[in-house]
Amino acid sequence: MTEAIHLSCAEYVECLSSAVPGLSGGGGASALVGAIGTALGSMVGSLTVGKKKYADVEADIIAVMDKADKLRCELLGLMDADAQAFEPLAKAYGIPKDDPGRAAVMEEALRTACGVPLQIMRAACQVIELQDELADKGSALAVSDAGVGVICCKAALMGASLNVFINTKSMADRAYAEKIEAEADDMLSVYCARADAVYGKVLKKLR
Amino acid sequence: MTEAIHLSCAEYVECLSSAVPGLSGGGGASALVGAIGTALGSMVGSLTVGKKKYADVEADIIAVMDKADKLRCELLGLMDADAQAFEPLAKAYGIPKDDPGRAAVMEEALRTACGVPLQIMRAACQVIELQDELADKGSALAVSDAGVGVICCKAALMGASLNVFINTKSMADRAYAEKIEAEADDMLSVYCARADAVYGKVLKKLR
Repeated sequence: MTEAIHLSCAEYVECLSSAVPGLSGGGGASALVGAIGTALGSMVGSLTVGKKKYADVEADIIAVMDKADKLRCELLGLMDADAQAFEPLAKAYGIPKDDPGRAAVMEEALRTACGVPLQIMRAACQVIELQDELADKGSALAVSDAGVGVICCKAALMGASLNVFINTKSMADRAYAEKIEAEADDMLSVYCARADAVYGKVLKKLR
Repeated sequence: MTEAIHLSCAEYVECLSSAVPGLSGGGGASALVGAIGTALGSMVGSLTVGKKKYADVEADIIAVMDKADKLRCELLGLMDADAQAFEPLAKAYGIPKDDPGRAAVMEEALRTACGVPLQIMRAACQVIELQDELADKGSALAVSDAGVGVICCKAALMGASLNVFINTKSMADRAYAEKIEAEADDMLSVYCARADAVYGKVLKKLR
């Protein structure tokens, strides 16, 4: 497996574009874009803490930054975890279609492949909440960074959802698939709107 | 200056979150997210070319991939170019407010700082067009990657626009500022809708 997080940014996009085997595609890219969005939130915090003008909100900002640090590390880890979670599915596709054990192996592999993009979605939602607070309380000088950050996390949320739906679609256990899809749909419906509201708030401060 | 494209993905998000001086913030991050989106488009192409099922569209896909390669390199270059374009503005802020030359230096610096995010926007729009074609003609197995790619380019477009508006807002020459803002607004209005349409098309194929 190619460890994407240790590639340089230039090498990573190069490997991604040539579909290097073992490198996660859209799922891993969603995780990285989410981590970039999270980092921009932390950047807003870094540019706020220690400034006299923002002394009143400093404790809140530090609490947000602690949560953002954990979520950024989680998202970075999910970048390569997505490639690993895809491996059993890639193997399952290789099982002959008339093998009686194929269906059960495939079903389990689809569940595994769904898990990481769902985690990416959950983390992106949490970061969108943090960015809402940062857009309100963070340094006015860095407000555009909060806006870019939240729109990156929205892209991570939407991107990862496609990697959930592509797997649930093929599941035989429809009750399980629909439960996962319902969770994904709920996250999309609440947090895409929330991200748009934060972006709108930032834009209003900027223009 | 810290050369962001040669940092590993993990180091880059770490530097971004601690607001390392000389590293581009939201502008550079938008460029990288655009490059990731472009790479996902190329990945769809890489997984399509050479497949018998897609022989009819192979020449079109190769032409799209050539354009995507150039745009990916351009966006990666803009990642660090954004940090360089911000330097004169950072210096201009340091000029004493009663210096009679300050206004002219500041105006020129604002124009320079606007230029790179505008280029990021233009490149993202071109990639969204390419991804529309890839979502139609590319391998069905990689359609989710086309969807993640287009949503990343939409985030790059919207993110970079904030870095245009934050600079045009402070310009004294309102006619120039409004010209730039009109170009940015036109790109946002046409290409955000186009990206949503491509994403919707992908989602329809997936669910």
